[in-house]
Amino acid sequence: MTHQAAIALGIGSRVLAVSDKDPASLVMPSVTVGDHRDLATLQSFAAGCDVVTFDHEHVPTEHLRALEQAGVTVRPGSGALAHAQDKVLMRERLTELGVPCPRSIVATSTGDIEAFAERVGWPVVLKAPRGGYDGRGVWVVDDAAAATTALKVAARQPLLLEAYVPFRRELAVIVARSPLGQAVAYPVVETVQRDGVCHEVVAPAPGLPVGLAASAQQLALTIANELGVTGVLAVEMFEVDGAVLVNELAMRPHNSGHWTIEGATTSQFAQHLRAVLDLPLGSPSAVAPYAVMVNVLGGARPDPYSALVHVMAHDPGAHVHLYGKEVRPGRKIGHVTVIGDDLDDVRARARHAAAALRGDLDDHGRPTGGEPT
Amino acid sequence: MTHQAAIALGIGSRVLAVSDKDPASLVMPSVTVGDHRDLATLQSFAAGCDVVTFDHEHVPTEHLRALEQAGVTVRPGSGALAHAQDKVLMRERLTELGVPCPRSIVATSTGDIEAFAERVGWPVVLKAPRGGYDGRGVWVVDDAAAATTALKVAARQPLLLEAYVPFRRELAVIVARSPLGQAVAYPVVETVQRDGVCHEVVAPAPGLPVGLAASAQQLALTIANELGVTGVLAVEMFEVDGAVLVNELAMRPHNSGHWTIEGATTSQFAQHLRAVLDLPLGSPSAVAPYAVMVNVLGGARPDPYSALVHVMAHDPGAHVHLYGKEVRPGRKIGHVTVIGDDLDDVRARARHAAAALRGDLDDHGRPTGGEPT
Repeated sequence: MTHQAAIALGIGSRVLAVSDKDPASLVMPSVTVGDHRDLATLQSFAAGCDVVTFDHEHVPTEHLRALEQAGVTVRPGSGALAHAQDKVLMRERLTELGVPCPRSIVATSTGDIEAFAERVGWPVVLKAPRGGYDGRGVWVVDDAAAATTALKVAARQPLLLEAYVPFRRELAVIVARSPLGQAVAYPVVETVQRDGVCHEVVAPAPGLPVGLAASAQQLALTIANELGVTGVLAVEMFEVDGAVLVNELAMRPHNSGHWTIEGATTSQFAQHLRAVLDLPLGSPSAVAPYAVMVNVLGGARPDPYSALVHVMAHDPGAHVHLYGKEVRPGRKIGHVTVIGDDLDDVRARARHAAAALRGDLDDHGRPTGGEPT
Repeated sequence: MTHQAAIALGIGSRVLAVSDKDPASLVMPSVTVGDHRDLATLQSFAAGCDVVTFDHEHVPTEHLRALEQAGVTVRPGSGALAHAQDKVLMRERLTELGVPCPRSIVATSTGDIEAFAERVGWPVVLKAPRGGYDGRGVWVVDDAAAATTALKVAARQPLLLEAYVPFRRELAVIVARSPLGQAVAYPVVETVQRDGVCHEVVAPAPGLPVGLAASAQQLALTIANELGVTGVLAVEMFEVDGAVLVNELAMRPHNSGHWTIEGATTSQFAQHLRAVLDLPLGSPSAVAPYAVMVNVLGGARPDPYSALVHVMAHDPGAHVHLYGKEVRPGRKIGHVTVIGDDLDDVRARARHAAAALRGDLDDHGRPTGGEPT
């Protein structure tokens, strides 16, 4: 999706990918297949790049520092990115900044967890500081026995231990910041997660009080500025009574911003490129009253392309994105966005298309016995 | 731009291009550099393609027929495409269909031209039947001497000779048609040409009476259906008092439809892919009251990228497209689209951005002495 934005601006780009079957490898003119954890691979890839940026957080921080020391322009820089790579570091820094977050400590033993739970109550949330995504590396535990199991799975690394937040719903704010310090905030969205995986995004978050929306955007802009982020920053939040708490950070185009491709004047991908290239940022304004994005996760249908006739005939206005990935259960293989004036209509249409692509609906739009939509 | 649409749908694509510097060659994962007039090259390129389509009309008709006979799925087919390749054939067929066109004959001598001009009046328009584009191969001649010169330049091939139409303005209609016969029409646009080259497109054509707009769309749909077009068909028209006359046909995504990338629910590029892949067509509806597209032609600025800071800072809502082409005077190197509610505002903004990219405005937006915008 970043390549689509790069094409519009005539920006030459190349990708370092783990496999020649990665979505980016399938569509880009210059692909290096290699390991992003290997410094020599990174150095060789970065040679000749004006700017190096990311679509995940898994390049080791020390390698990013080495690239920077060798004169490579890395955006976001290692100093900022470290906060999206290490949840303990993130939580410490946000707390210093006075950003409202769930209560947390670093835990290394069941004793730590029991003592913390005595103060904040069960359940508590354990998070691996590094390497998690889409719910991996996160455990919600109800008692000491479950905590002990999680500690074992995490292989004795210290874990971030957080109070469980009984949130009203989850929100996210995408902001972008350029090296010059120009910054923009997109409308606050509601995200619907299942098992830690994003299923649906509604832009803007329905019924969110204007003041709370402004606070959420301001928080995200403050974080971008204080951490010195360049590029897109996604801030995932919990809405609690009349306030928000910051849950997670991602410093790259993020699933909660896919709706911007059709739903905003400047897509998050174009915005990320503008920011990391130190160009003036584009307008983040929405182009329609509502946009709903529903992820297509691997399901009953072995080939999502086989659903296109039904999906396109049923709804000529749905925007289908398929990533060219092999279908595996629960894997994000695409998404659908619908924009319009009527939230119920827009949401129903996006859900229908995604359900058909996933295989919960057959080629006539009838339930196949999969999850209800 | 077709590749951008292919990425969204997860459609694998490859391109046969004249040069590795062609815009498509710069952005696509699989590029064959070769001559589209060479049958063996075409055969080798087409092997393994589910569908072969085009972004120009210059593949020889007999080669397309040979591919079809060998079982290659060519869309649009040679039978349809021939009408966009040969203006004499096009004019004959449209006349048979009762489509209103300028009066015309085929001329081989100055005598033919003088006799025709005696009936319809000077000036008359001479067109090379094949190979022309962007005003090349078209001569508006005022007298017999100029006609003789044009015949010489055209190297004695028979020319299509047409009455000069004192049009009010030029219009264009993009339609798309699938092999099943499903078809859609985009809003009628006004195109502004200079020296035969498209400079500006306004969607929808301002002040066009509803009945005339419907007639123009109906004409384009009739042509697509009668010629058996698959894919996008652009019909360029003259508006005369209360009626339209058909001027030219193109069977591919067309400059008059670039505004659809941001201005319509389904871009002409996505629509072309859907049509040639025999998928249900997308909604052609506009997403804003007005869209204005202004081409960026090669001008005073040697590097259009140097204008991006001004253009983006001046107008965070302008959609800039740069094609990565080397700048040559008058060459189409990009375009700008702006969408919105107020036509004067939208047009002024698109013109400003294009003028800066071309070099008529400096990095502060001040005229450099180029053409006024």
